Amino acid sequence: MRYTKPLEDLIEEFRKFPTIGPKSAQRMAFTLLKKTPEQVEKFARIICEAKEHIKYCSKCFNLTNSVICEICQDPRRDSKQVCIVESVKDLIALERTHEYRGIYHVLGGIISPLEGISADDLNLTQLTTRLQIQLDEMNPEDELELVLAISLSTEGEATMLYIKRLMSQFGDSRIKLTRLAHGLPVGADLDYADETTLARAFEARVVA
Amino acid sequence: MRYTKPLEDLIEEFRKFPTIGPKSAQRMAFTLLKKTPEQVEKFARIICEAKEHIKYCSKCFNLTNSVICEICQDPRRDSKQVCIVESVKDLIALERTHEYRGIYHVLGGIISPLEGISADDLNLTQLTTRLQIQLDEMNPEDELELVLAISLSTEGEATMLYIKRLMSQFGDSRIKLTRLAHGLPVGADLDYADETTLARAFEARVVA
Repeated sequence: MRYTKPLEDLIEEFRKFPTIGPKSAQRMAFTLLKKTPEQVEKFARIICEAKEHIKYCSKCFNLTNSVICEICQDPRRDSKQVCIVESVKDLIALERTHEYRGIYHVLGGIISPLEGISADDLNLTQLTTRLQIQLDEMNPEDELELVLAISLSTEGEATMLYIKRLMSQFGDSRIKLTRLAHGLPVGADLDYADETTLARAFEARVVA
Repeated sequence: MRYTKPLEDLIEEFRKFPTIGPKSAQRMAFTLLKKTPEQVEKFARIICEAKEHIKYCSKCFNLTNSVICEICQDPRRDSKQVCIVESVKDLIALERTHEYRGIYHVLGGIISPLEGISADDLNLTQLTTRLQIQLDEMNPEDELELVLAISLSTEGEATMLYIKRLMSQFGDSRIKLTRLAHGLPVGADLDYADETTLARAFEARVVA
């Protein structure tokens, strides 16, 4: 004896999400059953609409409900600064800082031989294509900064190295590669930092 | 700048579930976007079907997709043993033991003045009605056992006390009230048990 079939199906659907175990899936299914029919319909409709309308920006691969995303469309953003991120989540994290005023390029992943993700699986051809178009329109004295905002994991470093090589093959001296600074998180206790972070923070120390 | 509107809506919907924080909601939304349109449609359909088809059993308030649940319909179940549980979750937990062969009555809650749940909010009138019908059909020498499978929290004890009084008002000597034994969990270390559980286990000790 288990739950009635439609309920078992519902629990099973929730269990397909990552980090949702049997107890959480059960709790979510019961929560849903407690809603009004209108609320449940709205939930189902929002799910379908999200899938239907959300597309990748054809320029930077951010998520958007039109062809080109809001950031790429925004004339106030500096197109000469392109921040390269692994995912849309990282893009949003950077946007939340309200510091960066350039545009983005979302790789859609990170080189990871263990997970079978190679450079070909990332949006890198699209990156070189858009950079070529942009460089063709730029003045010879202008600079195009690529900010690598990728985490310093093994996969992240491999990806950054790959992009670095790709850009040197490009051979355009107007491209300038930078990457995010690594060090102690602001406000964190020194003895809570892992050794690598601490070592990097020490290495990259600045005049006080 | 946040996510595109349909995605924000989707994340917001997932956040409405208990224990789902912003990060989990975001992860679930992204997982959903990675599915094929067919998978997403299936998910939405299962949600709507669950809400549409799942009803409460008109006899015991278990969840069912017909009028009377499978347990109440099963002729092999002993209708002279009615186990009273707080929720369908508890019913399923008991069913998983494969020990109990009687039927159920789901209260749909527990008396909790703090949460504003009184005896009137529970399926108690329905309990006395069904018991009355059953007693009318029973022989004078038969017994009807009500097993209170309710946790020993303050609310649980209040609920059990209420049902006990309700049954004594009923004044039918064929009704026999029992409740689950409380003691050490099987396999648990003695020093991990809380004092109340340990005291109860000591009190209820049996000949070895």
